[in-house]
Amino acid sequence: MSKEKNKEGISVKKSEDISEWYSEVVQKAELADYSQVKGFMIIRPNAYGIWEKIQNYFDKYLKRKGVRNAYFPLLIPESFFKKEAEHAKGFAPELAWVEKNPNEEGERLGIRPTSETIMYDSYSKWIRSWRDLPLKINQWCNVLRWEVKQTRPFLRTREFLWQEGHCVYETKKECDKEVREILDEYKKLCEELLAIPVIAGTKTKSEKFAGAFYTTTIESLMPDGRALQMGTSHNLGQGFAKAFGIKFRDKNEKEQTPWQSSWGISTRLIGSVILTHGDDKGLVLPPNVAEKKVVIVPIMFKEKSGNIIKKAREIKKKLSEFDVFLDDREGYSAGWKFNEWEMKGIPIRIEVGPKDVEKKQVILVRRDNGKKEIVKESELKKKIPKILDDIQKNLFKKAKKFLDENIVEVKNYDEFKRAIKNRKFVSVYFSEDEKLEAKIKEETGATSSCVPFNQKGEGKCIFTGKPAKKILFARAY
Amino acid sequence: MSKEKNKEGISVKKSEDISEWYSEVVQKAELADYSQVKGFMIIRPNAYGIWEKIQNYFDKYLKRKGVRNAYFPLLIPESFFKKEAEHAKGFAPELAWVEKNPNEEGERLGIRPTSETIMYDSYSKWIRSWRDLPLKINQWCNVLRWEVKQTRPFLRTREFLWQEGHCVYETKKECDKEVREILDEYKKLCEELLAIPVIAGTKTKSEKFAGAFYTTTIESLMPDGRALQMGTSHNLGQGFAKAFGIKFRDKNEKEQTPWQSSWGISTRLIGSVILTHGDDKGLVLPPNVAEKKVVIVPIMFKEKSGNIIKKAREIKKKLSEFDVFLDDREGYSAGWKFNEWEMKGIPIRIEVGPKDVEKKQVILVRRDNGKKEIVKESELKKKIPKILDDIQKNLFKKAKKFLDENIVEVKNYDEFKRAIKNRKFVSVYFSEDEKLEAKIKEETGATSSCVPFNQKGEGKCIFTGKPAKKILFARAY
Repeated sequence: MSKEKNKEGISVKKSEDISEWYSEVVQKAELADYSQVKGFMIIRPNAYGIWEKIQNYFDKYLKRKGVRNAYFPLLIPESFFKKEAEHAKGFAPELAWVEKNPNEEGERLGIRPTSETIMYDSYSKWIRSWRDLPLKINQWCNVLRWEVKQTRPFLRTREFLWQEGHCVYETKKECDKEVREILDEYKKLCEELLAIPVIAGTKTKSEKFAGAFYTTTIESLMPDGRALQMGTSHNLGQGFAKAFGIKFRDKNEKEQTPWQSSWGISTRLIGSVILTHGDDKGLVLPPNVAEKKVVIVPIMFKEKSGNIIKKAREIKKKLSEFDVFLDDREGYSAGWKFNEWEMKGIPIRIEVGPKDVEKKQVILVRRDNGKKEIVKESELKKKIPKILDDIQKNLFKKAKKFLDENIVEVKNYDEFKRAIKNRKFVSVYFSEDEKLEAKIKEETGATSSCVPFNQKGEGKCIFTGKPAKKILFARAY
Repeated sequence: MSKEKNKEGISVKKSEDISEWYSEVVQKAELADYSQVKGFMIIRPNAYGIWEKIQNYFDKYLKRKGVRNAYFPLLIPESFFKKEAEHAKGFAPELAWVEKNPNEEGERLGIRPTSETIMYDSYSKWIRSWRDLPLKINQWCNVLRWEVKQTRPFLRTREFLWQEGHCVYETKKECDKEVREILDEYKKLCEELLAIPVIAGTKTKSEKFAGAFYTTTIESLMPDGRALQMGTSHNLGQGFAKAFGIKFRDKNEKEQTPWQSSWGISTRLIGSVILTHGDDKGLVLPPNVAEKKVVIVPIMFKEKSGNIIKKAREIKKKLSEFDVFLDDREGYSAGWKFNEWEMKGIPIRIEVGPKDVEKKQVILVRRDNGKKEIVKESELKKKIPKILDDIQKNLFKKAKKFLDENIVEVKNYDEFKRAIKNRKFVSVYFSEDEKLEAKIKEETGATSSCVPFNQKGEGKCIFTGKPAKKILFARAY
């Protein structure tokens, strides 16, 4: 995207055609570009910066928790995939294989769609006794899943970046506890960093991870009424351990099979930020994920531009701790710059004009609500962190309100269908049944999002009348 | 590697069989493991921690320099590789291809061995005018090169991790300047972080990067007399720009072809740390790349173990800013623990025994030279940073001495051959000649390492008698 084109702005309203709106924001805010290879994307610096904020936040947590980073090979032997039957079946359709070199011996190699199999082969060699447990390893890497569904930058691509944590425990209890602890941290990350409220729960059998004992998930609702899975944390049970021969001698020298977990978040989160907070002017960045939080735009008038630039630089210096930058490029009008930085979602704009220099003030504009205020120069340093904090909270509040208003409880299948049609997050008593879930998906396009945690009591399944928990359904990304 | 096996230590001396020694250190210090897939390695947490130190250091520099991180696809269309003829020829033998899905249209896809081609295809769309320059983008990623030579963890593997920077400039002058600036930073990284002295220079035509105008490099000499390329920074000239159609309008609205650079360092650096500093007891980590810098080992005697553990914890708390950890595991003897942490290269060991508790002192042991000293508890906090600093400097000094002593100037081909046989870094007046270089390689196994910078004057080529600069030759990793 050349800079000249940004001026044009987004050509459709978010409320009118969110799909086209999303494509335009992604391109014009220079977040991603389409690759010449179908289904692949180029993550541009403006988006990679968001990913770095997520990485920094979560990696610090991992280190506090004693999870250590490692790196396992990209290519996985075919036989590894086949060891755990459910896992093999789940990932088979999405695997990309490497062309075999005719001169080379050895198995056919697949490009990792996830690394359970290759990691657990190593784990079976590394783990001998209870002293080696818990084993907590994470890797930040790329994975490939040859999607046949329509792809969309960040939300569904054939290659994406993620972290995948893989832990091994002596007992189910310990594994359960940590699976949940990771999920809680993901929730915190979404809510505090990305300003996106999520609902935490478990996946139904139909939707759980291939090979898992159970899957916990955090789910958000996008403005178009589609649910987005933001992160998952699986208790893998002992199935992989048995398939890969991971055993340990306990304190009584008895051989035992350990429990395992795996968990991940991906660059998909960048897509959720764009969708949740963006508006008709483009991207809106929550301050906590904004690489640059404040832009200073000098309003130049020929005869006084020297003074104005001088003042703008002075302000930049004074505010340097807040990730401020100065747009002093020549040849672009102030209005053009306003549009550019609004498009790119910078949380705060500070305008410095000739009158402002005289009066020792600036004009401060918030990206989230467009509000302008005159701020005394002397108060800027105190005000900026407060406003950033307020923007962060305001974005979360707006998103939370949307989520709360769009969860609808339904009492029968007619209501269910209507609610899905109306793009709601549908809460329904449903006794988990894989066949019925498949039928619902076929007839309404909706899938089960999660069984929220902490439900008091049970109700009756609207289909079978059996005792059931509330399950959230929606069309999903 | 199970923990019990570490006790055994390294079975060969570094000076007797460095190749076997290296394999054992890599395995027993839990740095890497062989993958079931030939030529691939598993980077274990102890080694990945070194990579994280390198990443942190260099990424901060990149941000100061205004280089922004991004991520380009793993898979590159075949036609991209073919656009720049020299580059295509250079990488063709090492490319791995993805099996074509018969239902899918489009080109054959290769797994990136380096990303010039896919990045510059995007650059040709993103760059329009001088306002878009310089463009400075970096990515941290994995790359695949299907090596046919023998592989070795970190030093030569079919997959490795690296950073690749790719910049575009208006002028040759600017490009030259920044190519050198990056190389200088790589040198600083090697010397200050890894404690490895390097020689900076340019590559000869035979050894330059495929498609580059010229390549600058930093080279170190390993203890076995083989040169190791630690990092390269290329001026790519205008060849890629022409091949990929990257153009810009200058300030006079005239269309111009820009200049480009690319530069990278990789997980190979981990191998250089192992080789350079390791000894017969295992890994020796320079403090600046050690995730954990100090280990406290309590010497337990049954009747007093409570007091000792208490004291050890107290010391750990007091020294927390220095990345200290306490090995209070039961069921392992103190001697076993000493071996374990020596094997893993922890810079400082602090022993706390019953007598020490009484006398308010500890025994401090340096990993680099094995020296023991008694240190008063009250002086520990002041002494630790000084000792860490001294270890860092001492390791560099030792390596520098080795390098200096092993550079040999030769005056004719006989001396050259003898010096190479004696595992020296051979300095020779040589007028660059690709055919002659190929002959030397065939006859001696040596390749040109670099033409060192800042040479005063010229001499006469020992082969042709033509005016020539000094060039360093060695057998290379």
